[in-house]
Amino acid sequence: MAEAKKLTGAGLRGQSAGTTALCTVGQSGSGLTYRGYDIHELAEKSTFEEVAYLLLKGKLPNQAELDAYIAKLKTLRALPDALKVVLEQIPKDAHPMDVMRTGCSMLGNLETEESFDEQQDATDRLLALFPSIICYWYRFTHDGVRIDTVTDDNSVGGHFLHLLRDEKPSELHARVMNVSLILYAEHEFNASTFTARVCASTLSDLHSCITGAIGSLRGPLHGGANEAAMDMIEDWKSPDEAEAEVMGMLARKDKIMGFGHAVYSTSDPRNGIIKQWSEKLSKDVGDTVLFPVSERVEAVMWREKKLFCNADFFHASAYHFMGIPTKLFTPIFVCSRLTGWAAHVFEQRANNRIIRPSADYNGPEPRPVTPIEERD
Amino acid sequence: MAEAKKLTGAGLRGQSAGTTALCTVGQSGSGLTYRGYDIHELAEKSTFEEVAYLLLKGKLPNQAELDAYIAKLKTLRALPDALKVVLEQIPKDAHPMDVMRTGCSMLGNLETEESFDEQQDATDRLLALFPSIICYWYRFTHDGVRIDTVTDDNSVGGHFLHLLRDEKPSELHARVMNVSLILYAEHEFNASTFTARVCASTLSDLHSCITGAIGSLRGPLHGGANEAAMDMIEDWKSPDEAEAEVMGMLARKDKIMGFGHAVYSTSDPRNGIIKQWSEKLSKDVGDTVLFPVSERVEAVMWREKKLFCNADFFHASAYHFMGIPTKLFTPIFVCSRLTGWAAHVFEQRANNRIIRPSADYNGPEPRPVTPIEERD
Repeated sequence: MAEAKKLTGAGLRGQSAGTTALCTVGQSGSGLTYRGYDIHELAEKSTFEEVAYLLLKGKLPNQAELDAYIAKLKTLRALPDALKVVLEQIPKDAHPMDVMRTGCSMLGNLETEESFDEQQDATDRLLALFPSIICYWYRFTHDGVRIDTVTDDNSVGGHFLHLLRDEKPSELHARVMNVSLILYAEHEFNASTFTARVCASTLSDLHSCITGAIGSLRGPLHGGANEAAMDMIEDWKSPDEAEAEVMGMLARKDKIMGFGHAVYSTSDPRNGIIKQWSEKLSKDVGDTVLFPVSERVEAVMWREKKLFCNADFFHASAYHFMGIPTKLFTPIFVCSRLTGWAAHVFEQRANNRIIRPSADYNGPEPRPVTPIEERD
Repeated sequence: MAEAKKLTGAGLRGQSAGTTALCTVGQSGSGLTYRGYDIHELAEKSTFEEVAYLLLKGKLPNQAELDAYIAKLKTLRALPDALKVVLEQIPKDAHPMDVMRTGCSMLGNLETEESFDEQQDATDRLLALFPSIICYWYRFTHDGVRIDTVTDDNSVGGHFLHLLRDEKPSELHARVMNVSLILYAEHEFNASTFTARVCASTLSDLHSCITGAIGSLRGPLHGGANEAAMDMIEDWKSPDEAEAEVMGMLARKDKIMGFGHAVYSTSDPRNGIIKQWSEKLSKDVGDTVLFPVSERVEAVMWREKKLFCNADFFHASAYHFMGIPTKLFTPIFVCSRLTGWAAHVFEQRANNRIIRPSADYNGPEPRPVTPIEERD
């Protein structure tokens, strides 16, 4: 074995593990870009389906391409019967990310990606089906109904809200979902994306890569921060109460979710965008508590700790204003990030070497196997 | 963002991505050790259950500990009804690794690891249940029977063979399975284990980590080499025919599976061990073709390319002599490597930092979003 180089930081922090053309995170002058396009501009001027097309196919679509892509996705929303049976076997109190992981894995048995030529189609199917998977399970176990997962909504976000609430979403809600899905779509070599790339580097199939990525996003250090933020703020009745609670948490050194970032050091470019939309939704529903509470928490965290909101913090209130149950926040993240994961899988496959690092050994020296009767 | 260091090799080759006390691979003086014990000695003197205990709990068990561990595993072999329903939904022509991945993921819904205090129990359950999962699905879809997965075999390998063939295995077969499971149990930061560690680093649950690892092992560059070797050699009628075929493949620069290794440079210490057992099995079944063919392929590859057999090559004939269908070879690998994966998850959790590398960007420069009507 070649002598392994000592890395300076644990967790490969600051170490390059490959190349990508998909995304820049935290580079000076531009906080977050997808294939060169700034996240602010994409969130303002484009739809999630355009961003999905951009990430997966390398260019922003023209109108004809976009229309065709949306039309294609709309044809792919029906669940296979065997997958419905599986989802119905999953208990109501299961972790929704376990449902997503299992739904994706099961689909791999039913519609196996037999060759890499099928990678785009397999991804489009998941893009259309993920809202169907989570909403079918949720509505079956929580409302006792078997929903028809085929809707005529043009957008992934609209489709999701429609299935969840059994009615066509308002234009505002569809627009916010759209922005939210854009913001979460891609973020370079984060842990779930890196999981997908390690899996892809063995030349495994797409469903294995995405299933693995879902499992990593499930971890509380990765996805789930918006759910944790919601759990924290939902009981606070006023900004003053929120401030007192946060000060207490800081004094006790409790972890406060939705703040700071492993890569960004001064701000998260996604925060300002989702915060604006959360404010619009707050006015739309006549909220006088949750948005002001969120703003106060943001101000206190900056004043006390110079910690900024990341993408997750104002997502909590935004989703809540749209009536989305907190436990479904991270599955929405999956519906979006699928596009980044899959684009990274395509990229890994196109220029692959198996990802197989070394390790520093800190275990016992060579020793003989003691006969079992002589062991302690 | 800190400036990312340039690594010399793609795929993190030769780069340390963390520390481990579990295993050394290819260090001078000892080819492969688990917690300091040489693989030759473990394969000769211990059982797979002792090795599992060693990897998971840090020491070789004494007789009372081993007896208790075996007794515990035997109580955990029954499939939950919901998992049976799921397995019955998976088609006969599915990829058996997709079955394993889905079975593991589904179990995570039914028996969720709610806290890291449960990690040992959750692992033991998977260790007992993986043979049940694959054999239940295989026998249901291939033989049309719903098997009872509870047997009184003392070993994981014996349990597997018993379920597969509906009879208690011979002592020789149980012993070979035992050796095989020992050889595959652990191998440092290979791609599937690294997948499990990346997932664990987000503090996700055990089932997510193992599900992801299965997906990576599925890749043809990782697991599956023993299946590919079997597919290659099974039609050759004599050593001379095998030699002619191999020479032809080398001339065409075809990839020949079961040879060479990413880490070992002169030999794979596992090969000599499984080769001996393959030879014993060959004599036991009165084989006069497959083992001689395998030996000839080994000799030709060394003579022509100085390439040595890795752990997988003689596993192909060994498993075949025991009547194991080729498509189940890699699932057996899962039944074994689970122990290494889980031990790495425990280790990652005990001293964790999220694994989040950086990437070198080679995409477009910042550019404005063109209005859709102006796009190509």
